[in-house]
Amino acid sequence: MATRQEVADRAGVSVAVVSYVLNNRQVVKEETRRKVLQAIEELGYRPNQMARSLKTKKTRQIAVLIHYIGNPFEAGLLLHIEETAKRHGYFVFVQTYEPEREEELRSLLVGRVDGILLLGQPVSEETLDYFGSLDVPVVSAMQPASGREATAGVPYVDIDWPSAMRSLVAHLRGQGHERIAFMTAGGADSAYANRLEAFREAMAEEEAGAGPSAILGGGGRFEAAERELLRLIDGGGELPFTALVCANDLMAAGSLAACRARGVAVPKRVAIAGCENILMSSQLSPPLTAIHYPRQEAGEAAMAMLLGRMNGSDGEPVRLQGQLIVRGSTRADG
Amino acid sequence: MATRQEVADRAGVSVAVVSYVLNNRQVVKEETRRKVLQAIEELGYRPNQMARSLKTKKTRQIAVLIHYIGNPFEAGLLLHIEETAKRHGYFVFVQTYEPEREEELRSLLVGRVDGILLLGQPVSEETLDYFGSLDVPVVSAMQPASGREATAGVPYVDIDWPSAMRSLVAHLRGQGHERIAFMTAGGADSAYANRLEAFREAMAEEEAGAGPSAILGGGGRFEAAERELLRLIDGGGELPFTALVCANDLMAAGSLAACRARGVAVPKRVAIAGCENILMSSQLSPPLTAIHYPRQEAGEAAMAMLLGRMNGSDGEPVRLQGQLIVRGSTRADG
Repeated sequence: MATRQEVADRAGVSVAVVSYVLNNRQVVKEETRRKVLQAIEELGYRPNQMARSLKTKKTRQIAVLIHYIGNPFEAGLLLHIEETAKRHGYFVFVQTYEPEREEELRSLLVGRVDGILLLGQPVSEETLDYFGSLDVPVVSAMQPASGREATAGVPYVDIDWPSAMRSLVAHLRGQGHERIAFMTAGGADSAYANRLEAFREAMAEEEAGAGPSAILGGGGRFEAAERELLRLIDGGGELPFTALVCANDLMAAGSLAACRARGVAVPKRVAIAGCENILMSSQLSPPLTAIHYPRQEAGEAAMAMLLGRMNGSDGEPVRLQGQLIVRGSTRADG
Repeated sequence: MATRQEVADRAGVSVAVVSYVLNNRQVVKEETRRKVLQAIEELGYRPNQMARSLKTKKTRQIAVLIHYIGNPFEAGLLLHIEETAKRHGYFVFVQTYEPEREEELRSLLVGRVDGILLLGQPVSEETLDYFGSLDVPVVSAMQPASGREATAGVPYVDIDWPSAMRSLVAHLRGQGHERIAFMTAGGADSAYANRLEAFREAMAEEEAGAGPSAILGGGGRFEAAERELLRLIDGGGELPFTALVCANDLMAAGSLAACRARGVAVPKRVAIAGCENILMSSQLSPPLTAIHYPRQEAGEAAMAMLLGRMNGSDGEPVRLQGQLIVRGSTRADG
């Protein structure tokens, strides 16, 4: 196990500077700070002494790393996270997570937060180890993509996607749909990966061997989803599906916009459903069928879990029930 | 003019501790830190030396104080603010502004940010003086309520509300509406105060002496607006207006929800319009007439203004043009 002296040697600084960095004193030049943090990681140094002192020097601040603040669902979750944090006297600051700047972000957060809440995206294994070594707990609202080894250990709050997707797929089948497509965003890292996975399973269960009739990329956003569907519609010929499940409501709204723009009747020619049931969804034209994700319950549970971890208790993953809300976008008589 | 020694005496600490605090070294106990910051304010100490040193010790961080992250319009502005900041190598962190915690927030930000961007709410005169003394510029996206002396000097980016409201009111009059109500939120401090003011003027101009036929409080949110309108509808009798202009689209959507729930035909019995034209507005049922607020232009301009101020240039207020988008919620043939 590396010593502080070894860290200092490798970084070419004095032992004192190493503790300055761990105490985040601003007297340390950013460049030096980087060198030291890098040495700490390379040597796998575990500054328990420091960790304890950091623990006792509470910042009363919590960082929320958000995936896409433009998604009203994530913003809604955030509202309840903030509410809960405020009740406990914590300040929440929010930062949009950018993979390419994760290392930089790490050095911005060290010594400045008592806990970190991931909202919709994973972080690297290095980052988890790093904050783990500093006793700064990391919790995730929405389960990190199950494919990720790194974040496998991060406690999370999410809904039971398999059962929610089964009820949605069953509903669409019941409406006579056999070719059902899924619109997702991001890769295996994306929080949507779990929703796609659950959709695949639900399709396979409903009818042996059946899979999505198409997987579309909607970029997680209204405009990108609209463009993607316009591309398919304008490509001519029949669409490869009669029903479309979108991993978030924003992409569902963008898909509705594309259908409206091209006179494609919803749900007559294409049924469209979302996965979050944001406030606006009930007022869309036609009103959007969606899996209801209990934002308040989830936000409060995620924050409670983080506060618990900050006080040393283990956080067991929390599974909430999603609920299918059927509206005009999938029901012929809607 | 107070000296650093006087600050130290009043706070009952050494001069060194005062500079620790101004340099935000975490070695200082939070309680001591508070004492010192309070002494600095009470004595009106202007730590120019410190200010300069803080200036040279760039944090590459910018704080955005947001009013209500649940409003997709504010989130949309934020996206473009972040994009612009990122292009210039800055980290943006976002904090929901709470008046009752402003003092606490001040001590969290000192020494940690190069600039502050207000998104939808004012801050106290003390806070402006305080950051002014530390050479940390403050800029506002959306003009702080004109009633406020304190924020009168803060440079801002906003649209030309008077001309935008004139075109909206003229359109509604053209559709035969004479009793036009306005739904707002917050008091004279609210960013919506300017929109209400512009609406009043537009009404008075259109017809000498005419004013809003009613001013409703929608709390700035979907649910609160829905409740308010349900209350009026369920109160029985005719509504005191035939057209309703909502200070933000979220309240307009909530109003549409109330009308839908009670079978009040839009626009036949009540025409409804918004003031932001968020992405979802075009997909609402009926599609929402709204003043289009150019989010990208505004977000980029606000961030550019802040960066400019951080580099010593003065920021002149920027006035963008809003554009009336007429849709089904106010056009009988929509």
